[in-house]
Amino acid sequence: MNDNVFSLIKSHTSTDINNGKIKSVGHVYLVGAGPGDEELITVKAMRLLQEADAIVYDRLANPALLSYGKPHCDLIYVGKKKDQHSLPQEKICDLLAALAGCGKNVVRLKGGDSFIFGRGGEEIDYLSRQGIQCSVVPGITAASGCAAATQIPLTHRDYAHAVVFITGHRQNGKMTINWDLALQKDCTVVFYMGLSNLEEITRQLIERGCPTDKPFAVVSQGTSSEQQVVLGTISDIAQRLMHRPLLSPALLMMGDVIHANGYALGLANQTAAEYRGVNQ
Amino acid sequence: MNDNVFSLIKSHTSTDINNGKIKSVGHVYLVGAGPGDEELITVKAMRLLQEADAIVYDRLANPALLSYGKPHCDLIYVGKKKDQHSLPQEKICDLLAALAGCGKNVVRLKGGDSFIFGRGGEEIDYLSRQGIQCSVVPGITAASGCAAATQIPLTHRDYAHAVVFITGHRQNGKMTINWDLALQKDCTVVFYMGLSNLEEITRQLIERGCPTDKPFAVVSQGTSSEQQVVLGTISDIAQRLMHRPLLSPALLMMGDVIHANGYALGLANQTAAEYRGVNQ
Repeated sequence: MNDNVFSLIKSHTSTDINNGKIKSVGHVYLVGAGPGDEELITVKAMRLLQEADAIVYDRLANPALLSYGKPHCDLIYVGKKKDQHSLPQEKICDLLAALAGCGKNVVRLKGGDSFIFGRGGEEIDYLSRQGIQCSVVPGITAASGCAAATQIPLTHRDYAHAVVFITGHRQNGKMTINWDLALQKDCTVVFYMGLSNLEEITRQLIERGCPTDKPFAVVSQGTSSEQQVVLGTISDIAQRLMHRPLLSPALLMMGDVIHANGYALGLANQTAAEYRGVNQ
Repeated sequence: MNDNVFSLIKSHTSTDINNGKIKSVGHVYLVGAGPGDEELITVKAMRLLQEADAIVYDRLANPALLSYGKPHCDLIYVGKKKDQHSLPQEKICDLLAALAGCGKNVVRLKGGDSFIFGRGGEEIDYLSRQGIQCSVVPGITAASGCAAATQIPLTHRDYAHAVVFITGHRQNGKMTINWDLALQKDCTVVFYMGLSNLEEITRQLIERGCPTDKPFAVVSQGTSSEQQVVLGTISDIAQRLMHRPLLSPALLMMGDVIHANGYALGLANQTAAEYRGVNQ
């Protein structure tokens, strides 16, 4: 890559006067790593990874990104261990603050984009209140990545003048979906983290009046070499997945754009054929 | 940048048998360039720019990206000339097809993401019907870029379980906004291309019952060094902009997330102070 993109790399360690002593405090970067394909990280995010003193990460769409850290960069995992819960958010925030307090420049690396279902808002709020300087570097969110990889446009002059991203997971056991929002016409609806609630989401939408032939797609491990696509309608997609379970992370897409061209259908047929091949 | 990201660069010229003759046909890449900051392009998009035989572009958030093309790469402008309309979409599609027909690998470069208000759906539909192989490379969409740059999270567990992107411009003179969608609770609403209709958008939302104290932000030339931020409420934002006109492109953001931390307020005060400084 041309070096001139990387000209003027600044030192990001800020110096702060505190109680009469000069205190060196690191900077925290909340960096979106993008979806599964490692090449979908931004040039800026890659530069910051290469400069970081510490990289704090959890579930990453592509763990290969960690190899771009400089020698002796701290690599700190704060995600779920097998059969255990994630670290509580406040523990992660404390850790980020503590690392910055040691004068380290910290990259908090997350799949997708930190500000779209990434809890970046909570982290930045906490760190700002501690007086720690933060920057946010956006990432390709899963919806953009999966749309590109399946060639399903999120907006289209003929089908969708808007796009909605909704979390399909439960918060404290409760579904937080605003059903009226998901039922609006003239838009594409994308559910993040909804795979395990797919049956309930589609059933509730139909009960509330969603047309039963509304096109529906599930994209598993989108943009990675393991990507799988299943297409159907809101009425039959849950059943299709019973016959062909998909792995997380998966994105649910709903809307007329799914039929905008035949590419996604080709992908779905191809992976279905491969799947049948494997299972025969 | 580490070379291993760029290992295995393949030749993308596909060979196709047509009427008994071997015909060499190029590949078209619809590539999102991201918002104003040139470092917010993805590593993959940058690689494709560097390999392209032709780059077809219109209004670009950052024209400096064109300098990464290889020597003798065709650079073809298809955007608006001063006081003239843009080229009709079908002319652009014909041009992409013609270039691919000459065996060229073509990057169709756009600001933001081609599939979020970028008309990528129309281009890929046309090209696929011509039998031209296409790939789509996602870009950081303006909402993600502006959210990161202003530290306004698009979703937040306390304020917004969803985010909506709506086009705020007119299609054939008509506003296409689904007002019910824009009025939903528990979400952040982002209007693309809505600056010139800001007064009408805010007025119609209030008439339809939007709380008059709903936080509102306008981000002009987001992520670039020229970024300007104005904060207010849905009731006063249009008036604030009358006193301080902003340049396109600009993004309108609406929702309680705007108050999630004080950073955006700091930016708005800072640029307002600079503005007063210039105008005193």
